Amino acid sequence: MNTSSEHKPQPIGIFDSGVGGLTVARQIIKLLPEESIVYFGDTARVPYGTKSDRIVREFTWEDCLFLLWHGVKLIVAACNTASAIALDELDRYLQIPVVGVIKPGARAAAESTQRGIVGVIGTQATVDSKSYQKEIHRIDPDIQVHVTSCPLFVPLAEEGWTEGEIPKLIAEKYLQPLLLENIDTLILGCTHYPLLKPLLQDILGDEVTMVDSALETAKDVAALMTAQDMLSSDPDPQRNFYVSDLPRRFEDLGQRFLGEQIGTVSIAEPWKGSPPSQFDETK
Amino acid sequence: MNTSSEHKPQPIGIFDSGVGGLTVARQIIKLLPEESIVYFGDTARVPYGTKSDRIVREFTWEDCLFLLWHGVKLIVAACNTASAIALDELDRYLQIPVVGVIKPGARAAAESTQRGIVGVIGTQATVDSKSYQKEIHRIDPDIQVHVTSCPLFVPLAEEGWTEGEIPKLIAEKYLQPLLLENIDTLILGCTHYPLLKPLLQDILGDEVTMVDSALETAKDVAALMTAQDMLSSDPDPQRNFYVSDLPRRFEDLGQRFLGEQIGTVSIAEPWKGSPPSQFDETK
Repeated sequence: MNTSSEHKPQPIGIFDSGVGGLTVARQIIKLLPEESIVYFGDTARVPYGTKSDRIVREFTWEDCLFLLWHGVKLIVAACNTASAIALDELDRYLQIPVVGVIKPGARAAAESTQRGIVGVIGTQATVDSKSYQKEIHRIDPDIQVHVTSCPLFVPLAEEGWTEGEIPKLIAEKYLQPLLLENIDTLILGCTHYPLLKPLLQDILGDEVTMVDSALETAKDVAALMTAQDMLSSDPDPQRNFYVSDLPRRFEDLGQRFLGEQIGTVSIAEPWKGSPPSQFDETK
Repeated sequence: MNTSSEHKPQPIGIFDSGVGGLTVARQIIKLLPEESIVYFGDTARVPYGTKSDRIVREFTWEDCLFLLWHGVKLIVAACNTASAIALDELDRYLQIPVVGVIKPGARAAAESTQRGIVGVIGTQATVDSKSYQKEIHRIDPDIQVHVTSCPLFVPLAEEGWTEGEIPKLIAEKYLQPLLLENIDTLILGCTHYPLLKPLLQDILGDEVTMVDSALETAKDVAALMTAQDMLSSDPDPQRNFYVSDLPRRFEDLGQRFLGEQIGTVSIAEPWKGSPPSQFDETK
């Protein structure tokens, strides 16, 4: 494999179950503005976090194949559930590097905690996987990790109910057990949760630091691409966004996550496969 | 078509995006205890109600094909979203009868209303389809119909948060505009909502009648099968349940909906197609 040293203008591939992964795309664009990007959001089958390992792996492979068909040089699993469940398998079988959001978040939390007590909130599937505990304990086995799932946060964020009494009561109910454990750091272990940040900070108080893995993940991507000499310097990088359903809704909602205009979003259904001609023969 | 007069022990097929359609299965079993049933719940791709017409039609066709492969004699679309969006198309192309949940619910509401003011709650897709308005106005164009979507009700019901302050505040927020319209009848236009019935009745008060289409749909199925001479009298009817994900969870959760033990639930992924040998040649 020496394709990496040829500075091809191949894009970075990013996928998520929906719109949340755009927070990761945003940080990657900020750190690596000369890279092209292909983003896929599986909005027809969202959410992933309430489903089994078997189904999350199946959907994740289909998402990745779609990105491979676009000739990506690196894949970012910008979805906590997919990262928690399928990253090891992707990394084992794919030739190109695959970066998830769990390790960067775990590292940032381990660096941030003063008392050595970290909280994690995520989907049921992410919680069940125990991925955050494993990654944090790989760094420091003495850190206490308390994990809880927050199933209503994704629908609240998608509904746009991010402030007011109802979201506050729901968030208090979920966070209370973590506060009782005296956490000083909280990992937002789902790419939807940053939308609820102000609300969560109000409940947590100023002494708890929130870790959002988007920026940390972008840093890991930049470091890895630098180390492996994979950076592009394209004066006109392309950004292409695909979803499996509701592209207009993604264009509207996505702006809030990406922090800039998205442009036209196209429909793709990776589970239907791709004609051979679409496979990039240069890869 | 004279297969219908041969009293074959073919099953009734029922599908839903998930577990909610079991409320319909329950009423069908009660009214037609000698009928075999094949149930499919698309738990890998749930929910349908937040997705586009295009995707709901695609998924619905796959669900129906799975039932056809099991040699069903009639299909019940026990999902409001699928009924609202895809029923006309299914009915146009399939030889066997197809029964949805919208018409029975609309008829029951038109019969129930005293003041001629009916409320409907449902998913975003059901609301956007305007199906309930159309069906009610086909019966009586003078009935006022007020419709609202309740996106958080499905996650609340799936979470089991069906009582207490948080569900009460959410339900009040959704129902307030309907109460201001002075409705005397409310259609529960999603098979998940019957789980929230006690909570909703508290907010609505005794003067508002709730219509849950499960029983009405079962009555329509029984009437249609009687009229078309399709009834079976099987002393040992089979009940087979399939889901696309999390069968154990469906077994646990399903009991609450079905009102009896479900037995073993199997996995099926209709989007992967079926081997030709699985197609029932007697159909």
